[in-house]
Amino acid sequence: MSDATGSYGKGVLLKADTIANYFRDEITAVLSTRPRASKLVGILATSAVSSRFYAEFTQKQCNSLGVNFVLKKTGAAADISLSEGDGVEEAIIEANEDPSVDGIMVYYPIFGGQQDHYLQQVVSPFKDVEGLHFKFHYNLYHNIRFLDPKTLLSSVPSTTAPAPAVEDQPPPGTVKSILPCTPLAVVKCLEHIGIYNKLLPYGDGAYGKTISVINRSEVVGRPLAALLANDGARVFSVDIDSIQEYTKRPRENTDVKRRYFPRHVVRPSTHTLQECLALSDVVVSAVPSAEYKVKTEWLKDGCVCVNIAADKNFGADVRDKVSGSARFKQH
Amino acid sequence: MSDATGSYGKGVLLKADTIANYFRDEITAVLSTRPRASKLVGILATSAVSSRFYAEFTQKQCNSLGVNFVLKKTGAAADISLSEGDGVEEAIIEANEDPSVDGIMVYYPIFGGQQDHYLQQVVSPFKDVEGLHFKFHYNLYHNIRFLDPKTLLSSVPSTTAPAPAVEDQPPPGTVKSILPCTPLAVVKCLEHIGIYNKLLPYGDGAYGKTISVINRSEVVGRPLAALLANDGARVFSVDIDSIQEYTKRPRENTDVKRRYFPRHVVRPSTHTLQECLALSDVVVSAVPSAEYKVKTEWLKDGCVCVNIAADKNFGADVRDKVSGSARFKQH
Repeated sequence: MSDATGSYGKGVLLKADTIANYFRDEITAVLSTRPRASKLVGILATSAVSSRFYAEFTQKQCNSLGVNFVLKKTGAAADISLSEGDGVEEAIIEANEDPSVDGIMVYYPIFGGQQDHYLQQVVSPFKDVEGLHFKFHYNLYHNIRFLDPKTLLSSVPSTTAPAPAVEDQPPPGTVKSILPCTPLAVVKCLEHIGIYNKLLPYGDGAYGKTISVINRSEVVGRPLAALLANDGARVFSVDIDSIQEYTKRPRENTDVKRRYFPRHVVRPSTHTLQECLALSDVVVSAVPSAEYKVKTEWLKDGCVCVNIAADKNFGADVRDKVSGSARFKQH
Repeated sequence: MSDATGSYGKGVLLKADTIANYFRDEITAVLSTRPRASKLVGILATSAVSSRFYAEFTQKQCNSLGVNFVLKKTGAAADISLSEGDGVEEAIIEANEDPSVDGIMVYYPIFGGQQDHYLQQVVSPFKDVEGLHFKFHYNLYHNIRFLDPKTLLSSVPSTTAPAPAVEDQPPPGTVKSILPCTPLAVVKCLEHIGIYNKLLPYGDGAYGKTISVINRSEVVGRPLAALLANDGARVFSVDIDSIQEYTKRPRENTDVKRRYFPRHVVRPSTHTLQECLALSDVVVSAVPSAEYKVKTEWLKDGCVCVNIAADKNFGADVRDKVSGSARFKQH
């Protein structure tokens, strides 16, 4: 732990790969029960260096875990004279239809926000290892943690409440709903460093914690804020034009009545960013700008900072203030 | 017709409501065969004046057509002290589940691009009168014009080619796939003014025409460019950082081989915007900026200009150059 004067020394810098090591044994154990090696198809459709590195990283990880990884290159990734993204939709459809393929991973960004969002819906929800299909976002926002795999076939959102989860095990006939990969990675970091309280019941482990999430994009910021609020935290969702508070514990006197099962409720906040940061045990920033910096002097002593932007959203002096910070590139 | 010197007089200004009148009789005739009045629920969740006007316009149109229109107000539309958009997802789900509701219309924008795109997936494809669900976009991009309603139930995109359409009538057991409303409205304008050639077979009516579509958003620009190319046109899709050519007639010597049924193919174009406009019989502009103007001197004499931005993308002098121009606000 450190305070603002640095008298306890610098905050700890946590690297995501250290945390990831804890999950390797679990994955290896599960895969060893399968009758055949699982096959993951990675689809690389651009010449972007960061995507190529990510694909090589996936290859290496799959090799070490015993997953059969097949890299499918198309468009400018296959031949620089072809267009960026050319053929990516057809490659996804072929992988959807190939019964030997268990999972599909697509290296975004390809065309940018909305068109990439379209592609994410083309990936079959049965093979979407990244949790980017609408059905998984819907389940996250509605705090639906387990699903009957048959419901993945339906284009119409489910509104029948499943049995409430009391522990981290899917009830019979259900599996875990896939969580979008980047928000889930943040939760795993926060569990690792003890922000989640293990004494609390499953599904409420972040109760008592206040967390600011800076940026409210549909890719990371909004699903992450909802996920943390569904886990019990009080979350400030901060975007360029507004600050909202997400919580699944509405005030007693609220007029908002919902007939759905307990999930986060969103309200406008009258707090400024400075006031939010003064209250926050954890600050997650995902602002895609090299210029944007969270003001170190606004952070609460000993808080935990997580940077998920490609750029550094925290200043060089952040470790003088925090107890821990985690950095990983958002893919 | 007019030329650049104005010697033939000014181009005709076409208003969308004149064109819409042609469809009223058709709709009234279809509705009269129904056992009960159709019920359309409009969901208004913001305090935006333009959305309120649009809702009032829908009400008026429905009244005159004999459609039972029910306006559901939520969030800031119901009570200015509530948040913009509050309760909109729940209102959609209630309308999805209400068997008395035949159609759902949501007044966007609410939260902005990506989050609105999420909401568009919450609307059941069985009730989506605006054609904004992913399944309809997928069908448009893949030139799938008719569908078995049962396939709307499935979350997995269809890849079995339906029987090719030879005329504008759904084969037995199928219905028309809903086209996204704004791109369809542009096609209806172009049909009305004779850009579509009625001598050509169904599905190829825009053959021989060159069309520039400025802006490639997933909301209007890209689906419109694909729709026009699937109808036979050569389309230049112009965006801030690139120009692409959409056509369903690939060059003989192309290396791109696709095993899917005939649909538009996208290639990078080496033309500049000026060169595209010099070739274009029709220019459609959808740039959400008051500053952006298509240069009138770059337009081909006698071309048709369609403005679908809220701002005027064509200069005040455009009618000196064109044969016709159409304007309608994009909702």
